[in-house]
Amino acid sequence: MDEVKQAIREVMDFPKPGIGFKDITPVLQDARLFSRVIDALTTWAAALDPDIFVGIESRGFLFASPVAIGLKKGMALIRKKGKLPYETVEVKAPNEYAEEIFQIHVDAVKKGERVVIIDDLIATGWSSISAIDLVKKLDGRVVGFGALVDLSFLNGVPNIKQKHPDVEVKTLIQFE
Amino acid sequence: MDEVKQAIREVMDFPKPGIGFKDITPVLQDARLFSRVIDALTTWAAALDPDIFVGIESRGFLFASPVAIGLKKGMALIRKKGKLPYETVEVKAPNEYAEEIFQIHVDAVKKGERVVIIDDLIATGWSSISAIDLVKKLDGRVVGFGALVDLSFLNGVPNIKQKHPDVEVKTLIQFE
Repeated sequence: MDEVKQAIREVMDFPKPGIGFKDITPVLQDARLFSRVIDALTTWAAALDPDIFVGIESRGFLFASPVAIGLKKGMALIRKKGKLPYETVEVKAPNEYAEEIFQIHVDAVKKGERVVIIDDLIATGWSSISAIDLVKKLDGRVVGFGALVDLSFLNGVPNIKQKHPDVEVKTLIQFE
Repeated sequence: MDEVKQAIREVMDFPKPGIGFKDITPVLQDARLFSRVIDALTTWAAALDPDIFVGIESRGFLFASPVAIGLKKGMALIRKKGKLPYETVEVKAPNEYAEEIFQIHVDAVKKGERVVIIDDLIATGWSSISAIDLVKKLDGRVVGFGALVDLSFLNGVPNIKQKHPDVEVKTLIQFE
């Protein structure tokens, strides 16, 4: 994954002054690196025997969707408040920049289904925890949370493990 | 595709009173139907010999990403203004509900590359036309525009063909 890490571009002062944003678009644009990332997430997820995947809007969709297709599973969407048309449940989802609200359709995950959630990046872990909380509201059994990037200096993975010790957390690239 | 069409759920009065919104999430959640949709888009796109795929935020990401992976290609993102961190070009992108602005990174598509753009749905075709215009600003050669759903009563496909007759437009399901 060293080559993938090299391809991630840091954009300074986005979205706020002082923030160095990890821009993953060069990885997506490179067919070989994009495939390598999806292959790694797919191999990891397959071992968890999931029934369904959940992608977090909107960059999470880029990774959750091909992994779900590769394993011949369906996927459900976690979106920001107001985007999903049907009946939803919701949670507060604070992140580094804002206090958002995540929603999921009430019929997205069935009781007891084994769920793997996929996002692009774990920062503080707060929004990951919110996403897990949300799936649990539907009585889904969250067995894994996968992401391409871990901003490990923000302690996100330990934060998630502390709140949800039963969820296997996988990241492919760490920035210390 | 009759079974896929049956699975699409109409949600009334979303996002505005009087609108019957076509909710594709039941298709995504059904592993068999989701795979069938991605297979059909992949087969169509393969014949166009694309160099790269472009997905339109955010539901377009759900379809563009697995098609790109299936054909071992990269993908680039069209996003709403303010979401992409690096240097961008942009176009006005009016849709049925609002006047938006679409952006793409300046390095997303290389000059002369064969590009297939994928979105979830074609309504009036205005935002599809804007997306094609945007890729053409980077001197990409847009060879195809694919979507799951065509609200054909809004005349989107003919609108796109009139403005961009060189782009092959493919939709899997039509609502008359």
